[in-house]
Amino acid sequence: MLKLHSKLKGKLSINSKIKIKTMKDLSLAYTPGVAAPCMEIALHPEKVYEYTMKGNTVAIITDGSAVLGLGDIGAEASLPVMEGKALLMKEFAGIDSFPIALKLRDVNDIVSAVKSISPVFGAINLEDISAPRCFEIGEQLENLGIPVMHDDQHGTATVLLAALINSLKVVGKEIEEVKVVISGSGAAGIAVARLLRCMGYDETVCRRVKEIILVDSEGIIYEGRPGLNRYKQEMALFTNREKKKGSLKDALAGADVFIGVSKGNILDKSAIKSMAPKAIVFPMANPVPEIMPQDAVAAGAAIVGTGRSDFPNQVNNVLAFPGIFRGALDSKATKITPSMRIAAAHALASCVKKPSANNILPKALDKSVVPKIAKAVAAMAVKEGVVRK
Amino acid sequence: MLKLHSKLKGKLSINSKIKIKTMKDLSLAYTPGVAAPCMEIALHPEKVYEYTMKGNTVAIITDGSAVLGLGDIGAEASLPVMEGKALLMKEFAGIDSFPIALKLRDVNDIVSAVKSISPVFGAINLEDISAPRCFEIGEQLENLGIPVMHDDQHGTATVLLAALINSLKVVGKEIEEVKVVISGSGAAGIAVARLLRCMGYDETVCRRVKEIILVDSEGIIYEGRPGLNRYKQEMALFTNREKKKGSLKDALAGADVFIGVSKGNILDKSAIKSMAPKAIVFPMANPVPEIMPQDAVAAGAAIVGTGRSDFPNQVNNVLAFPGIFRGALDSKATKITPSMRIAAAHALASCVKKPSANNILPKALDKSVVPKIAKAVAAMAVKEGVVRK
Repeated sequence: MLKLHSKLKGKLSINSKIKIKTMKDLSLAYTPGVAAPCMEIALHPEKVYEYTMKGNTVAIITDGSAVLGLGDIGAEASLPVMEGKALLMKEFAGIDSFPIALKLRDVNDIVSAVKSISPVFGAINLEDISAPRCFEIGEQLENLGIPVMHDDQHGTATVLLAALINSLKVVGKEIEEVKVVISGSGAAGIAVARLLRCMGYDETVCRRVKEIILVDSEGIIYEGRPGLNRYKQEMALFTNREKKKGSLKDALAGADVFIGVSKGNILDKSAIKSMAPKAIVFPMANPVPEIMPQDAVAAGAAIVGTGRSDFPNQVNNVLAFPGIFRGALDSKATKITPSMRIAAAHALASCVKKPSANNILPKALDKSVVPKIAKAVAAMAVKEGVVRK
Repeated sequence: MLKLHSKLKGKLSINSKIKIKTMKDLSLAYTPGVAAPCMEIALHPEKVYEYTMKGNTVAIITDGSAVLGLGDIGAEASLPVMEGKALLMKEFAGIDSFPIALKLRDVNDIVSAVKSISPVFGAINLEDISAPRCFEIGEQLENLGIPVMHDDQHGTATVLLAALINSLKVVGKEIEEVKVVISGSGAAGIAVARLLRCMGYDETVCRRVKEIILVDSEGIIYEGRPGLNRYKQEMALFTNREKKKGSLKDALAGADVFIGVSKGNILDKSAIKSMAPKAIVFPMANPVPEIMPQDAVAAGAAIVGTGRSDFPNQVNNVLAFPGIFRGALDSKATKITPSMRIAAAHALASCVKKPSANNILPKALDKSVVPKIAKAVAAMAVKEGVVRK
């Protein structure tokens, strides 16, 4: 892997759509030819989408503070991941993406930097920014005027929701019946909880799971627990309405669904055994899951999905973000709303014709996924009216 | 031109160097494959040049405040120009370049933004930022650790210096004999004056022009003139040692060289006639030169060069910046010094085997230019010791 990266010296190249062979080419591509589109945009700002790369260009922005399983490795060291993400945008959805690793840590500084570089971008993908800063950054950028999505939160939550939708079909349970335990209340955990709060997307029927319990490193989160940051406080208002206290294991007793976005090897078989019949278990920690799939199955889990490609049911973000951004760009969306992500999850789930225990999500390379998600996301953007005129 | 820009929807595309056809491709290009280069860079920061796109990637950065001849049209409207510049970097020098149009105006904010996005870039090309802010921004970014060049200043000055070197050969004058009048003391005018202050580059022989007189919209700049900004004050210390006062026309009497980087149609034939014999005249204002070439010739100018491609001797920045950045990146330069630009000018001048009145510079599409400049710039960077270990 080092060899590949060293040989390539980066995984992206920036190419001209115009070859410069004659002086005429030069005068069209550069001066004096550029003056006309410049003036058009100066007079009609919306035309930046017509005459420049903006409409199909996404920034992959990080501060390098929470990179993959590697943690806080800094801006430069995060670049191989950001280039990889940009590469996937292009390969999966035809989107031109450019990695921007910011040498910044302060929330306001990051927000200002994103705002100031936004003119050339049609959308922003925030990546690998640590919680709880990522929540505040997301909030402050919500009305930037172009879609902003933090993939570690929203991409992950979208794919998990799709996995849950199909899993529920397989085990024959209804959304409203299930009790969900989420281990980990960082970027992904909180985003999953928020999305599960209302997983239907028909405006007439808001279908909620019966109960969500969120667990962090200190145990179950409950209203009034000392030391909760404001995002966990928000969670405490709509999760765990019985105000249970205790450990992850306490939370799991009788639960229908386990979603692990925390750390490896923290669950044993007995915890899975304590869950309700036909338990759905998603131990997503990487590279070592919260419990190994074979152990979860042995303990009675009906469906197990992980983040890894070497087990069945890989919950992979690449299933969601390319299609979501494609749909947002295609529909001229000004933001990516929860309803748009829920629409994406349903579209993603629908890519599997007959879900079964080992087949709840399409494969990462399934070419039908992006167009389906894009279409659903675009339709929802239009329906919600969050599109440019 | 609008049609071309509209059809293309931007002139750049960002492409993956790796095709994703199998799960193995995916795991190499993204997770878990990216972890190894990330960790290498975290441990050995210099390896960012080995494992990422940084070493061949240049940012084209503007605030849209002084775009071509269009002026202050803002960040979005400047994008066609910035994309064009990026395109030329690729087509001429194989450099991956990305346009960043900043929604900022304050000098310190621009400096902070450039610093914060610098991790992914191997060099910075500042573009179309108005004077005098561009000087301060350049100063503050001088020690960023990667080369920073403001093309409107340094690219222009480099090509003009090359044009002057060959013109002097044609008219048979020595550098030390000539009196140069520069009309315009914005980005280009001040950069030209600074570079002409010492146009030799052998450290044992610093060859200066005999005299420089800088003229702005209020007339000749002289030491003590009220209201000069600090950059013009700096100029007043080494130009116009006789402390002449008066108009552009007064300055031109007896001058050997006219360099116009001001505005169109401000000179008449009588002003050119008042110059020394074998006058060299570069009316560079775009699209209308300070004086039309045919008028300058009719008034006795021996050599005339403009910014336009429809007259002989086009002084075109594309002759300099691709080679300068190529050389800076190839040599691992940490900055682009005046000596490196002077080396570039001599290399550019040397591309014309036998200069003559209508052939003082190579054509914009001459493929021999970039390698020659790159080699000279790289050698000078090494000689000056401004390279990474």
